[in-house]
Amino acid sequence: MSGRTAIIGSGLIGRAWAIAFARSGWEVRLWDPAEEAAVRAREIIAELLADLANNEMLGGHAPEAVLNRITSAPSLAAAMEGANWVQENAPEKLEVKKALWKEMEPLAPPSAILASSTSAIVPSRFTEGLKSRERCLTAHPINPPYLVPAVELVPAPWTSQETMQRAEAVMRQIGQAPIMMRKEIDGFVMNRLQGALLEEAFRLVADGVCGVEDVDVGLREGLALRWSFMGPFETIDLNAPGGVRDYAERYQGLYEGLFASMQRRVDWCGPVMDEIEAERRSRVAADELPERQRWRDRRLMALLRHKAKARQEIG
Amino acid sequence: MSGRTAIIGSGLIGRAWAIAFARSGWEVRLWDPAEEAAVRAREIIAELLADLANNEMLGGHAPEAVLNRITSAPSLAAAMEGANWVQENAPEKLEVKKALWKEMEPLAPPSAILASSTSAIVPSRFTEGLKSRERCLTAHPINPPYLVPAVELVPAPWTSQETMQRAEAVMRQIGQAPIMMRKEIDGFVMNRLQGALLEEAFRLVADGVCGVEDVDVGLREGLALRWSFMGPFETIDLNAPGGVRDYAERYQGLYEGLFASMQRRVDWCGPVMDEIEAERRSRVAADELPERQRWRDRRLMALLRHKAKARQEIG
Repeated sequence: MSGRTAIIGSGLIGRAWAIAFARSGWEVRLWDPAEEAAVRAREIIAELLADLANNEMLGGHAPEAVLNRITSAPSLAAAMEGANWVQENAPEKLEVKKALWKEMEPLAPPSAILASSTSAIVPSRFTEGLKSRERCLTAHPINPPYLVPAVELVPAPWTSQETMQRAEAVMRQIGQAPIMMRKEIDGFVMNRLQGALLEEAFRLVADGVCGVEDVDVGLREGLALRWSFMGPFETIDLNAPGGVRDYAERYQGLYEGLFASMQRRVDWCGPVMDEIEAERRSRVAADELPERQRWRDRRLMALLRHKAKARQEIG
Repeated sequence: MSGRTAIIGSGLIGRAWAIAFARSGWEVRLWDPAEEAAVRAREIIAELLADLANNEMLGGHAPEAVLNRITSAPSLAAAMEGANWVQENAPEKLEVKKALWKEMEPLAPPSAILASSTSAIVPSRFTEGLKSRERCLTAHPINPPYLVPAVELVPAPWTSQETMQRAEAVMRQIGQAPIMMRKEIDGFVMNRLQGALLEEAFRLVADGVCGVEDVDVGLREGLALRWSFMGPFETIDLNAPGGVRDYAERYQGLYEGLFASMQRRVDWCGPVMDEIEAERRSRVAADELPERQRWRDRRLMALLRHKAKARQEIG
């Protein structure tokens, strides 16, 4: 089912999408309003592809073959020509997006799906006035999508069911794991779940209940182990003899009792940040952060290889 | 530093602690108020040990050697004799715990640490009246501790620093990852973090924003991948060029904007449970839950082996 995709904006996220599509056989046209940016993006992608090939993340394809599917387009119109999928990666500014989408939409072939990578703006806000707004949605990845499979597909109120189904099929074809939202909401699904957990993490540290590292231990040596291959609903479904309803009946009281004490935000940039930053910088100095990010990506790639193997061997 | 531990209560959690200690060279004495329960527990442990050995989870020790370190004690007094560590695993009923701790404390050698596995009761409530209450705390595992490293060490207001430090050392020696709480609070750390995330998960499904499986995809193909080897603070520390403060400055506004819509609980056992249960049972039938739990444990063991290997090879 591979086709042609137009990547609009060739920054970090645009480049990552280019890899995700090209690795799965799609022809990719990169366009960026900053002259030369798309050309330079292709050079950065070439470096990334070599690294991904070394980590068995190109599905057996040669990096050159993947790179050859990616070209920089001289104009927005040229990028959109013959595209089946358009992925917009402009800055998170509503006015920028609105102007860009107004320009993009008439240039896209009638059958193309148009998607935004935005994490912060619900799709209705920049697609409202468009003629063919039923084919527009948000496809928000966790960066980078060539490493992290989850992608939120967020419909505006007017996005058609058919568009959502086609978008789901495209995402699955390129190996992503779509989260099929039924309506738009600020924060979508993942940032809402992350935000809920982070608010409690900041509160615990601000209230002197435990340290920064203790929260991280609680996730990486505890909660997130099972979440990383099951998710939270399957986890609780298996944590009571009678399944998820049994779990809710046994333990809802415990959680209900905690809820009142969670109705308060602490300012993340307030005094608590001094403790958090001191703790983090004692573990990774500021000038070591880029190297630690490379470590993170190596560990992430190793984890993904492990998961693929475990699925094969264990189920 | 291995020594002798008394496991009080030989149910699921008591047996799991017995394995965690014995595997690390500790002599374990099991006691249970129900006659024969401790004897039967030893037989169940024998089966578990064979399975753990097959999964390289006994640190190279033969299952028989580990089992030989575990004996059932004929009385509470006999179990406590010479113990360095006492781990209580009674039912989550305050009156039961209070009576048991009153009985346990004078029997424990003066240098022993006394810990409860409770997940639901802060330690001050059952240690308040004890003579040597400064050596008492809660050591709450995620079950089973022989698979999941994280253990919350929860001090009562009178638990001594020395007790906490010794408890930390014991937990590290048996291969657990202690979360060093600075004061007691309902839900401790992990259930508070899990609860915050679950509340949002139930709300998203109840409000029709997405389905049950979408939440699980968001964690297992998204958020929990990095959390499973870094935790949430290190994750955000690496998600902005200038580290965790930079992240908070850039994104706090986004999360702050979501907070107001999180000030509402949905009843987990209300109408939303019909959808959740239907979805879960369509994926795993009720009579397949025990087999799925075995699958979970196999995947968990494989993940832990992967993490140990990745730490060695990547750091």
